[in-house]
This record gives sequence, structure tokens and C-alpha cells, in this order.
Amino acid sequence: MSFEVTILGNSSASPTHSRHPSSQYVNICDHHLLIDCGEGTQMQLARYKIKKSKISQIFISHVHGDHILGLPGLLLSMNLMKREQPIHIFGPPELFKILDVFFKYSDTQFCFETHYHIVDPNKRSVVFENLFYKVIAFPLFHRVPTTGFLIEERSKLKKLNMEVCERLKIPFTFYNDIKMGKDYCTPEGKWIKNEELTFPAALPISYAYCSDTLFDERVIDAVRDADILYHEATFMHDRLDRAVYTMHTTAKQAGIVARQAGAKKLIVGHFSARYDDLEPILLEARSEFPNTEIAQEGKTFILE
Amino acid sequence: MSFEVTILGNSSASPTHSRHPSSQYVNICDHHLLIDCGEGTQMQLARYKIKKSKISQIFISHVHGDHILGLPGLLLSMNLMKREQPIHIFGPPELFKILDVFFKYSDTQFCFETHYHIVDPNKRSVVFENLFYKVIAFPLFHRVPTTGFLIEERSKLKKLNMEVCERLKIPFTFYNDIKMGKDYCTPEGKWIKNEELTFPAALPISYAYCSDTLFDERVIDAVRDADILYHEATFMHDRLDRAVYTMHTTAKQAGIVARQAGAKKLIVGHFSARYDDLEPILLEARSEFPNTEIAQEGKTFILE
Repeated sequence: MSFEVTILGNSSASPTHSRHPSSQYVNICDHHLLIDCGEGTQMQLARYKIKKSKISQIFISHVHGDHILGLPGLLLSMNLMKREQPIHIFGPPELFKILDVFFKYSDTQFCFETHYHIVDPNKRSVVFENLFYKVIAFPLFHRVPTTGFLIEERSKLKKLNMEVCERLKIPFTFYNDIKMGKDYCTPEGKWIKNEELTFPAALPISYAYCSDTLFDERVIDAVRDADILYHEATFMHDRLDRAVYTMHTTAKQAGIVARQAGAKKLIVGHFSARYDDLEPILLEARSEFPNTEIAQEGKTFILE
Repeated sequence: MSFEVTILGNSSASPTHSRHPSSQYVNICDHHLLIDCGEGTQMQLARYKIKKSKISQIFISHVHGDHILGLPGLLLSMNLMKREQPIHIFGPPELFKILDVFFKYSDTQFCFETHYHIVDPNKRSVVFENLFYKVIAFPLFHRVPTTGFLIEERSKLKKLNMEVCERLKIPFTFYNDIKMGKDYCTPEGKWIKNEELTFPAALPISYAYCSDTLFDERVIDAVRDADILYHEATFMHDRLDRAVYTMHTTAKQAGIVARQAGAKKLIVGHFSARYDDLEPILLEARSEFPNTEIAQEGKTFILE
């Protein structure tokens, strides 16, 4: 099952020529998602040869410009390409008010369905699920209502113990039920416990995205045991005052979140334009959590 | 007197990785203007090393996304840079409704003054003038209310005929009045006509910008005698039907506008993403108006 994340932008609010505002592309089981959509996202998709036509869901963390200003243009380009399949957009209520006003005055009629899904930024909730994955929104702590997103594979099927199944001559039509955890009843009426028929399923994989937030213990709880945690690290720790004032996190704090949450890997991003060299940010985060990487634009991280 | 135009974007609504939506930077007498501000304009300014801090006026032709979606982000970045001087934005009334909604929900307070100047898209009018130049908006013919802009040097001062002035012993404190066209009265009460004291002023230079429009004779009248005419050429003439349907112009028609308006030079831009190679567009426009150039991103055109 594919599960990978490509970084499209790693800049905070003030982009540079070489660093773009927040956006990430997620491919999970051939479902194609965007998380956040800062200015220039459609050009970044073109740069990294990701077809915008296949994106079906867009998750927006909050309505600051560096997370949404690429969205109207992306939707307009999809329209010009005569997209047919619907698109689903998940975000705070304010997002849809902004989109509505823009599309009203620019006199835009879409040739495809646009479904708006309001995310409540005040509580943890499953905002989407299908057979393959679910997306959970959870509160972050920023200057406007903001959520992070946790993308989790659905629980995997157990693996059949074929030696036992064949010895008991279980018809294969029961296999799916057994893989999903059900016990089996023989024609003679004897119940065989599922544990005797299967091996445990592999653990589901999860990706946590924390866009803009203060360092807060509730975030640690929200992203517990993520296989990969993306966390903003707008400033280095010598600018903690500035981070607190603007409700952002330092690289050191991002490392602490990853360590305390038991994440397997940390990716840091959303860098202030003041930092030309990202190496010191990486080293600071690694001082708390060694398995840290920079959210390098164009890089694809594979979850496995 | 400096008067130059730098192309920041030459793409129509659907940008590519290498071509960006409409925006142009104008430096006239050390006043720094933007015309249109498509998505990614602030990154293009950074790419071409143009300081956004010095831009004081932004002129927006219409509220289609490829002409405005870079504006909120640019203003936000100016705010983050703690800009102090005011900015003046000129555009149709709908522009300011869109900006207001975005800045309301993104909870933005500006640390500098933002002055909104509503441009009436239905009539030709002077929307700004100072000692050095004036900006005239004029109607274009597109799917939403749209104006072009004509940036004209103010009438230049006449050149003194120093031989006559010195022979008449005219005090130099009168020179400015004479340069501006006034007659001179000698201490004996004799009036000397201005024509005897001066040579004619050089003709003022003008730049005309026609963003998105149908081919229409009224546009030709509006840009008459422009030194440089920028005109959209979204399609080639074999797609005239598409150009008419979407209310755009073909390269051939742009050439006709330039020729019939008596422009000295034509720059064509706003190219559809369908054209990888821009050479055929250039040749088509040149078939009507030989002194045509492509609006190549990063290129500066000097008006002299």
C-alpha cells in the first residue's frame, strides 16, 4: 500500500524566491490529497510533475494567507482544464466565506462539484474515512482557529495462519471474515477462536501534520505514536520570545514534541525567511530528537 | 528621467512551472508601481531582486484570479517586514470587497496605511497624477469589469533658449516659469512671448497596458500613440473562436491594435498554457506589427 508525502513548500508567511509557503501532497493508496495550499502551490505541483487533476481532497489547517492563497488559483486552473470529478475541501468555516466572496466577484462557475466540509477547530474529530484511511483533525494553538491533521491507514487485515485453516478445511469464503477478526464455527458447531487462525495484523501507519502552533502538551497527545510527524519550526530557540508572541514553535520544541509523542521520524518546516541556512535549525531539532529531517521542497517521504 | 517596465508574469489563467500569472513592475522617476499582481508575484519580485518595500502604488485591472491572487500575500509580507510608508491600491470595487473579507477572517491588522482607490471600469479617467506622471484608466472588454492603464509622463518642461535669455538679462528666478510656458515681462514693461525664449519640450512618453480584452476599436483609440503598448495575446488567430468566447485577443489582433493605434513598440503576453513555444505567437503579431516583442519574464523594457 502506497503512503507518501511530498513537500511543496517549507516557508512561513514571507516566502523567498527559493522557499514557498506551506503545502504538502499526500498519496495514500492512490488517493491524492493536498494539505494546505499556500501561494504558488499549483506552480510547485507543476515543478514536481504532480498532476493537479488527480487531487481529490484538500485539507486546510487555517486561513492565514501562507496556507490558503494558492487554493483559489488551483481551483480555477482545475476548472480551465475542464475537470469532471468532484473535489472535497476540508477547513474552518472562514475558509469557505473567503472562497465564496472571491468566486462571486470573479464570476466563476465551476464545471465540477466543489464540496465544502467544515472542520470544527475546537475538537478532535474524524473528518473523512474510507476503506483505506481516515483523516482526523485536532486543535492547534495559533492566532486564528487552526487544526492539525492525522492521516491514518485503516486497521490492516490479520494474516491467515494457512496451516491451521487448511487442516480445519475452512472454506475460503470465510477467509475475509477471519482476516477481519471473526471467530469460526465448524460444521459440527465448534467455535475456533480467531487468535488460533491468524497472525496479528501489521500496525497501521500514520502521518501527523502540525502547521502553525504554540508548543503545547495537548499537541503531543494528539500526535502520539505517529510514524512521521511534520511539525512547524518557524524559529530557533534563541527567538523563543518571538515564537511565543506569534504563536509558533521553535526547532528545539518541535524535537521535544516528537520525542515525547513517541514519533518515529520528525520533519521540520515552515521556516522564517530570516534563516538562509537551515542546517542550524536541523541540528537544534536533532539535539532533542535525532531522527529529524528538513522539509526540503520536492522531497518525498515514504511511510512504511 | 527613468521610465522602465519589468515583466514579472506572462501567463494567462493557468500558469505553468516556468510562466507566471500577470504582473509588471514599473519604475517611473523613482516611483515604483505594480500593474496587476497574479499568484506568485512576491516570489517573482524576489527572483528579479526588486525590493517590494519600495512599491508604493498597485494598479489592478480586474478581479480574475490570475491578476489579483498575489496581492493579499504581498501585502501580508510587507506587513511582516514592518513597512511604514502607506500603499495605494487602485482597482475595481469588487477587489476591495475580496481583500476586506480575506483580511477580516485572517485577522490581519496592518502596521502601515492601505489606501483603496476605486476605479470606475466604465469610463476613461485620470486615477492618479503627480508632478512626474499620471495614470489613466480606460475600459477594456472582458467577462468582468476591466480597465487598462495608460502611464504617461507629465508634459515635459520646455528648453530655455539661453542665448536669448542671457541677451535679455532675464534673472534665473524666472527660468522655471518660462520653462513651463509663461511669457516674460521686462523691467521696462515689454512682454516677450514664450516662443522666443524657449525650444519645444520633448514629447512625453507613455506606456499602455491592456490586460484582458476582446479586440475592440475603442481600445485602439484609448492607447493611441503609446510609446510601448503591452497587449494580451492569449491565443493565436486559428483559435479566434476561443478568443471571442473567452473575451480575449489573438496575437494577430494585438498586432493590428498596435499598428492602428500608432504605437512605437508592442509587447505581447498573457499566453495560454497550451503554447509551449512562443515563437509562432511572436511571428503572428509581427506579421501585423514588426516591432513586437514577447513579454519575457524578467526582461526590462526601457521607455525613452
